Amino acid sequence: MTDTTTPTPPPVLVMIDRVTLDDPPLAPGETGWRVVPADEPQIDVADLGLTRGDGIFEGLGVVGGAVQALEPHLRRLARSAAMLDLPALDLDVIRSACLEGARRHGSDAPLLQKLVVTRGIEGGDGRPTAWVRTEVLPDHDAERRDGIAVVTLDRGYRHDVAETSPWLLQGAKTLSYAVNKAVLREAARRGADDVVFVSSDGYALEGPSASLVLRLGDAFVTPRTDQGILPGTTQAALFEILTELGHAVSEELVPIGQLSSADALWLVSSGRQIAPITTLDGAAVPVDAALTAQLVEALEARRR
Amino acid sequence: MTDTTTPTPPPVLVMIDRVTLDDPPLAPGETGWRVVPADEPQIDVADLGLTRGDGIFEGLGVVGGAVQALEPHLRRLARSAAMLDLPALDLDVIRSACLEGARRHGSDAPLLQKLVVTRGIEGGDGRPTAWVRTEVLPDHDAERRDGIAVVTLDRGYRHDVAETSPWLLQGAKTLSYAVNKAVLREAARRGADDVVFVSSDGYALEGPSASLVLRLGDAFVTPRTDQGILPGTTQAALFEILTELGHAVSEELVPIGQLSSADALWLVSSGRQIAPITTLDGAAVPVDAALTAQLVEALEARRR
Repeated sequence: MTDTTTPTPPPVLVMIDRVTLDDPPLAPGETGWRVVPADEPQIDVADLGLTRGDGIFEGLGVVGGAVQALEPHLRRLARSAAMLDLPALDLDVIRSACLEGARRHGSDAPLLQKLVVTRGIEGGDGRPTAWVRTEVLPDHDAERRDGIAVVTLDRGYRHDVAETSPWLLQGAKTLSYAVNKAVLREAARRGADDVVFVSSDGYALEGPSASLVLRLGDAFVTPRTDQGILPGTTQAALFEILTELGHAVSEELVPIGQLSSADALWLVSSGRQIAPITTLDGAAVPVDAALTAQLVEALEARRR
Repeated sequence: MTDTTTPTPPPVLVMIDRVTLDDPPLAPGETGWRVVPADEPQIDVADLGLTRGDGIFEGLGVVGGAVQALEPHLRRLARSAAMLDLPALDLDVIRSACLEGARRHGSDAPLLQKLVVTRGIEGGDGRPTAWVRTEVLPDHDAERRDGIAVVTLDRGYRHDVAETSPWLLQGAKTLSYAVNKAVLREAARRGADDVVFVSSDGYALEGPSASLVLRLGDAFVTPRTDQGILPGTTQAALFEILTELGHAVSEELVPIGQLSSADALWLVSSGRQIAPITTLDGAAVPVDAALTAQLVEALEARRR
């Protein structure tokens, strides 16, 4: 079969120079960021983001040239920065760098942006390192349509650990995601595609890179974010859509047992947007294909 | 006052090209590593070590040109690699890169080497990125002599979590160390210099970058490593020294309460080597200055 598809456009990399409000103000005409070659090394081996996973990130979807949920992502980035005692960020420069990345890439295909802020060079001048990299999003159509097999794995912490032990940074979106990748390898060993973290005291929490949404009768529920989990930007957009459709939505404590009695389960995130869970720990989960297709379409149609 | 000290020699950076045994074997004359400028960016922004803290590291001391405990560090690196499902490492090339870094630096001052292996570029060829960076060790004389104030902080996990939930990677020395840095900021807020992690079920574990050693009467004790903590290379060397001096040493479960009845406490690590704990959560801890000085000297005198 001849491959008639066009080649994937290369990533676009925007390094952000004015990352924090402590930096000197921009001179007239300065942007605070610069577009650099994405295929050349840009990072020092002594960067604390690299040597200590000491930094924060966001993953943003771009559809039809529009960065989705940009303001909620920027707010969450600022929240993570505060949890890590990073300096206050210049969100205006960061916003403008994200918009420039999407504009420069110019592809019609759905894109993914990774926005990163690290604590900067160890022993350096204390200035964070930051960039936004924009690339074509991998195709997730099959998972959205056919669903995903999910296993529950213990996060190891109690559900209230963010309140008792804030130094564990639960609920901050940090670069220290080795565990979030390790659980995916454990899921693969169990024949599954993805994971729902559960607390050591029996509550369902979130995926390693997605929010969990349950349908319980007519109500749509997501686990409460005071359990050291992320406020989901795509989950928030989904709840707006569901509300417009006339459904009840709420944030709750979700005991693990409630998962097996749910009328449907989804994982929602900025890249894949929404995928129905078809099996949980090997047991079949009801799937509402028509509703899922409707939600996929509504999430993709967002222009902000 | 005129500064008559010589300027600090710059770091030496050795990038390691043949990181795993899966790579093509070395041709005659090839080393598998190359010395590169330490002040130029070497790392791609899409490296998983950076975007996910998905990698491992070791910190090695160099005294009088000799890399201390090189073989134990290499063994521990291989152990961390296995825990993260990384390919089997070519320890011969990695060893040789470490030795070259120490040789090239050539300074008489004590040095610190940071040896890093990441999972490589996301969406790339699956080959890890690796390097060893050698620099002059910051001066820790005051902490060795005058001691450090330490607070206990909850690690959030039970002491047996490495056995029940291996996907949490407790006991692997990963790049996902944002929490290990956050606890130091929490310690500073409490007026302290360093931290001893305790398990959620009441056992003393380790520091964020050091092993804990207790003196209980005539016995020297360190917490057992089956609690998801690192086997300390400097702690192992210290126990060899203590054994030669005729002291009893052992690995135990250490209930938190035992800390306050200890006859002395130390944190030991490759950089600072050994520092006596003078206060724990604000309460004075007995210090044996003469023994500590003897142990500092013995640890520094190691030539392997």
